[in-house]
Amino acid sequence: MNLSKSSSEFNITEKPRDRQRVEALLELADIQVNGNRPWDIQVHDPRFFSRVLGQGTLGLGESYMDGWWDCQALDVMIAKALRARLDTAIRTSGDFLAVAWARLKNMQSPARAFHIGEHHYDIGNDLYSRMLDPLMMYSCGYWPDAETLEQAQVAKLELIFSKLGLQPGMKVLDIGCGWGGAAWYAARHYGVEVTGITVSKEQAALAEARCAGLPVEIRLQDYRELEGRYDSVYSIGMFEHVGVKNYRTYMRVVSRLLADDGLFLLHTIGGNTSVNKGDRWVERYIFPNSMLPSSSQIARACEGLLVLEDWHNFGADYDRTLLAWHTNFGRSWPELKSQYNERFCRMWNYYLLTNAGAFRARDSQLWQIVLSPKGKEGGYRRPRR
Amino acid sequence: MNLSKSSSEFNITEKPRDRQRVEALLELADIQVNGNRPWDIQVHDPRFFSRVLGQGTLGLGESYMDGWWDCQALDVMIAKALRARLDTAIRTSGDFLAVAWARLKNMQSPARAFHIGEHHYDIGNDLYSRMLDPLMMYSCGYWPDAETLEQAQVAKLELIFSKLGLQPGMKVLDIGCGWGGAAWYAARHYGVEVTGITVSKEQAALAEARCAGLPVEIRLQDYRELEGRYDSVYSIGMFEHVGVKNYRTYMRVVSRLLADDGLFLLHTIGGNTSVNKGDRWVERYIFPNSMLPSSSQIARACEGLLVLEDWHNFGADYDRTLLAWHTNFGRSWPELKSQYNERFCRMWNYYLLTNAGAFRARDSQLWQIVLSPKGKEGGYRRPRR
Repeated sequence: MNLSKSSSEFNITEKPRDRQRVEALLELADIQVNGNRPWDIQVHDPRFFSRVLGQGTLGLGESYMDGWWDCQALDVMIAKALRARLDTAIRTSGDFLAVAWARLKNMQSPARAFHIGEHHYDIGNDLYSRMLDPLMMYSCGYWPDAETLEQAQVAKLELIFSKLGLQPGMKVLDIGCGWGGAAWYAARHYGVEVTGITVSKEQAALAEARCAGLPVEIRLQDYRELEGRYDSVYSIGMFEHVGVKNYRTYMRVVSRLLADDGLFLLHTIGGNTSVNKGDRWVERYIFPNSMLPSSSQIARACEGLLVLEDWHNFGADYDRTLLAWHTNFGRSWPELKSQYNERFCRMWNYYLLTNAGAFRARDSQLWQIVLSPKGKEGGYRRPRR
Repeated sequence: MNLSKSSSEFNITEKPRDRQRVEALLELADIQVNGNRPWDIQVHDPRFFSRVLGQGTLGLGESYMDGWWDCQALDVMIAKALRARLDTAIRTSGDFLAVAWARLKNMQSPARAFHIGEHHYDIGNDLYSRMLDPLMMYSCGYWPDAETLEQAQVAKLELIFSKLGLQPGMKVLDIGCGWGGAAWYAARHYGVEVTGITVSKEQAALAEARCAGLPVEIRLQDYRELEGRYDSVYSIGMFEHVGVKNYRTYMRVVSRLLADDGLFLLHTIGGNTSVNKGDRWVERYIFPNSMLPSSSQIARACEGLLVLEDWHNFGADYDRTLLAWHTNFGRSWPELKSQYNERFCRMWNYYLLTNAGAFRARDSQLWQIVLSPKGKEGGYRRPRR
């Protein structure tokens, strides 16, 4: 993929009335064009307004990548816009921007896979090893008692494994194991046998290397091909790639794989409303074929297959996680910039900061859901963490 | 209502093949007819089998009230039957009992109101004051650290109010306040102002008397008539009476009443599958117009109105709560029996014990769900209790 130019920037002409429209809408969220507060936006190319009105979030994101506008605190700007429910305000006034903002609401999909073309993919580990914590967990940390990203990721794993009640000798399945950090931690600290699956060769290779010497098997496999029986199943930041059409299949697979008294922990980002596809900008530049589930979509997919034992939301912790990644990314940029261009840098910052803003606005959620095939006998007691 | 006779016991004749059918089904759950283990059933009237096959749970419950069968451990029997998923097994074999057991799955509705005719209603407080804890909470207690019913009910209230983060001076709404125990506790221990509503005159009168001298207002009012703004709203064991057709309206009312950064706690029994009405026996004898919501029905009803902050399931604690009520009821029977007849006693025991069994089988759930209008700013942190 050629990242040096947007596919959609051509043939955009400046329309003066579009500027007024966009300004009026932004004013509802206390955002000014060319104002001097950190969350105000600086517009460098007057075609920006028409591009956003015409192309929604795709135009908003691409025009940012193209350098048509800037914002000192992109996360604050997005949080204010979403918190002010610009999408609702706009829908009421019947403005074209309704579509744009409604799409922006589904923009937040920082999951694991990384598919922006072959070149991008191959150099992914390099980027991620600098941006993430030492365990390379590419998902939300748990921050109540943590001060660093590393602590937050370990706390997240401890939270997951204590919710699952892992005991030595258990057979555990990790659906979407990424670079193997969780599988490594479970095998190392809980004495369990882990099978981890991923659809990424790069991830599988690194995961295998990191888990050498531990009872961890890493497989390049689609979740639908899984067989066998597991005492515990978890899936961290993979469900965002499943797609609503497969939710029922996914739950059916998990319920088939779980021992009668086993537990499943689903760690996923969630959206406040039900949609059928992801945001166009995110789709094109960050996570192809991804979308955020709603609580009703998940509940429906589980019905009759899995019993809901616990549903924990700590979405605000993703704000802090993303800011930590952003800091690490910025700090590592001098080492990375020979492999990436300036436009990639803008894209990546835009992705991290707009997502942080969406979680801060509580427009995106982070859910840990514990499910069991028949209801845990004697009842499920959630840990006090 | 005449409680001395079932309306449906007439014209039931004995059919020998029905006995074989029922016995074969019960065997799947390791239950024997006229066996000698506590969970086996003793059939005194051979018309029992045809009555159950013909009338499902209505026939099962009424024939118990009529003394056609007995079981030393009714709770264990029901738990075994539901745990063995007799309903599923039956559906597969195409047997008529499918309908019966499927209905039994929706039998568990121990909520607050008590409408078995006027006579029954009037003497309700008398029964409940003996059966329940001193605060007269007619809903599931929270047992992790409790040893007595009283402790479990106080722990439940502490759990609710800490989840809501009550602070002195807050305006709080209690939808379905029962005999005022929760409102009293909140006003007394958290220094908040409470408005409690109920549709029962008896409950309102007692609640008002008990809360005298505290900033608690009790109103005889339907939830749909509520107006105003509240910092916090909770509803304990009332949602079971709302009905699926009103779930959306209910959530709309709550979202309208809540302050922007307020919280709502919904404490309700839930079922594993979506249904449209309650069990016929429960409807007729215990709670008219009641039904259990499923998680997908609740999630759908909230979508776009309220953000899911936390979903806690401690259904197994209802087993213990119901057994405590059953013990208290049995202990108080000598004082109560002059006002109730033997058939009522069988009915009440049947209600308490079959419900205990359903929770033990994890067929019924107890949910505490925390919701907010826009997502709590800065994120919601659930208490470690």
